[in-house]
Amino acid sequence: MSVLGKLTAKPLLHISALKAYTPGIQPTDKGWIKLNTNELPYPPSPKVAQAIIQEVGNDGSSLRLYPNPTSAPLRKAVAQLHAVTEEQVCIGNGSDDILNLIIRCFSGDNADTGITFPSYSLYPVLVGIQDGVTISISFDRSMKLPVDKIAASSASVFFLTSPNAPTGVAFSNEQIEEVLKCYSGLLVVDEAYAPFAKHDATSLLSKYPNLLIVRTLSKAYALAGIRVGYCLANPEVIGWLDRVRDSYNVNRLSQAGALAALSDPSYYTGVVNKVKATRDNQFNLLTNKRGWFTYPSEANFLFTEPKNALSQTGPEVAKSAYDFLVSKKILVRLFASHALTASFLRISIGTDAEMAVLNETLDAWLKEKSVQNA
Amino acid sequence: MSVLGKLTAKPLLHISALKAYTPGIQPTDKGWIKLNTNELPYPPSPKVAQAIIQEVGNDGSSLRLYPNPTSAPLRKAVAQLHAVTEEQVCIGNGSDDILNLIIRCFSGDNADTGITFPSYSLYPVLVGIQDGVTISISFDRSMKLPVDKIAASSASVFFLTSPNAPTGVAFSNEQIEEVLKCYSGLLVVDEAYAPFAKHDATSLLSKYPNLLIVRTLSKAYALAGIRVGYCLANPEVIGWLDRVRDSYNVNRLSQAGALAALSDPSYYTGVVNKVKATRDNQFNLLTNKRGWFTYPSEANFLFTEPKNALSQTGPEVAKSAYDFLVSKKILVRLFASHALTASFLRISIGTDAEMAVLNETLDAWLKEKSVQNA
Repeated sequence: MSVLGKLTAKPLLHISALKAYTPGIQPTDKGWIKLNTNELPYPPSPKVAQAIIQEVGNDGSSLRLYPNPTSAPLRKAVAQLHAVTEEQVCIGNGSDDILNLIIRCFSGDNADTGITFPSYSLYPVLVGIQDGVTISISFDRSMKLPVDKIAASSASVFFLTSPNAPTGVAFSNEQIEEVLKCYSGLLVVDEAYAPFAKHDATSLLSKYPNLLIVRTLSKAYALAGIRVGYCLANPEVIGWLDRVRDSYNVNRLSQAGALAALSDPSYYTGVVNKVKATRDNQFNLLTNKRGWFTYPSEANFLFTEPKNALSQTGPEVAKSAYDFLVSKKILVRLFASHALTASFLRISIGTDAEMAVLNETLDAWLKEKSVQNA
Repeated sequence: MSVLGKLTAKPLLHISALKAYTPGIQPTDKGWIKLNTNELPYPPSPKVAQAIIQEVGNDGSSLRLYPNPTSAPLRKAVAQLHAVTEEQVCIGNGSDDILNLIIRCFSGDNADTGITFPSYSLYPVLVGIQDGVTISISFDRSMKLPVDKIAASSASVFFLTSPNAPTGVAFSNEQIEEVLKCYSGLLVVDEAYAPFAKHDATSLLSKYPNLLIVRTLSKAYALAGIRVGYCLANPEVIGWLDRVRDSYNVNRLSQAGALAALSDPSYYTGVVNKVKATRDNQFNLLTNKRGWFTYPSEANFLFTEPKNALSQTGPEVAKSAYDFLVSKKILVRLFASHALTASFLRISIGTDAEMAVLNETLDAWLKEKSVQNA
């Protein structure tokens, strides 16, 4: 008998059957080149550290008090950044918190959730926790947005990641607007990677009350460690999310750090441009020098299909490259569970030096495999 | 027509009908004596500020990386503190995060949630978000634990706050064990205030697999601002909570700060003892000097029934005292919505100096009201 034999209140059936989300590996030992979870390779604005240290003060006495329950100063700064009102902003403990609030408000009995495949793999996990139904619309290899299918979806809420993960492919406002013209559920455009793209969809907010845009400070603001994300939407939608949101979801230090980051746009323009230049270099190198098929990316990562020394591609080739990189302490991401993604690697854009080591290591992989095949 | 007329995907019916949790007032201007949300009046251990500043480093570069997804070092420290295994510990973004995870695992269709009234008013709000049913068992004015009623409850999960809020009354392990012997759902003992009590229920964990204990660092550890709570339970129960928990729910700075706090027990013994001494003094003063009925408290607050100059008690008297205190920039808490609580004030224990100002201000209230009545 299980030690829990006495406990009649087993967790709700769907919870015990759940497969949890698998986050990327976060190694605790040193010496890794970490290109697996799309973190920025540069530190955040120096103003962030200053603001956090100031909030801590001499003796940490501010920490004894609860944080601002609505992250009010941060909502104000986000509103200014995107030229919307404070009532159109909700702040989360990372954008995952925001995604969770959306699911809890809009997904459930008779309220299905639409997603594309591939996209951020957390969405269906959150729907599963809510015991909802996920309707998945698959891309084909072109990764062109299936506009008509999304527009015709019966889902109550639809998640669209743009630029998409793990491909990096961005969708145009024209395409998004085509969806919005027909789709009458809540369209969530997850713009986690938009600061690396040529454009974003925020200009559509004023025209479409059923549009919600999600952002994060984890990627372009180099602040994955302090967990701040936000969304922009109609005030009525924000009001619903706020009813479900925990009163103190964002702590004092995260509020202070995020506020400081938003106050230093010139710093971030610099580092984001640097990442984009490294990305475009790496894209050329993979595509032209190696001849590896790579999706054109507007994010801070590349989704590339490795070719081995015999010019073969496929899941085994991708796995071989992945394993070789891991053996040399380089982490990238492999999405082995689906045919559309299994023959690719997702490589986060690091510093130029990190990319040089990656490229040398891929050369070494090709050479080793070439010798093995000889 | 509402701006959302186009949006067919209104939030789930129960969400639009929800009444959100009302947190205590967190004033943003200076000069308040804040005795309304049970924060510790002393700063956290100096090791906390040191650890956070060390984690931030010179340039904040550690902040660009995601935090440890399981808060592993913190789980280990908590396990050591309570002499349990790491598999018996889950860390939350405040204990509210833990409470939410419990509700999402154990509350829903055909899985009712039991609470006592009064207790922490967040529980029924969380059940409402989950569209579950709350079964409330009321105390009478004695605030004695209705052991038989709880033991006989059909709820799948039952929340018991000990010491209770807002009364401060603690329940003995004998009483809790009486419940556990009969009740076969999950018994959640919310020990947010247990560090101020004479005993706690952790020793019962090894005997009862259906016991879950919730703790927070917001009160006794003076860390409400960094949002860290945790729970102790059977590894199987922890496994379910972890499936629902966000992968990166606790940020880097909070993990570092909490770990430092747990490493300095002697500091906390000192400040907690100081709060207990102030509480016991204040209890004597209210009870013996003023003759106000006050529940014997094992928490860091007192629940007292003010008497006006004519020795009257009641909701109007409590409201009059509350309003007078607010007018003098002293915040306490009034729970006006229920007969059992409406004639009381909940006063968090501040420094001796803050309590002296409170007491003088209550004298002034009595004097003013006495003149008005004359």
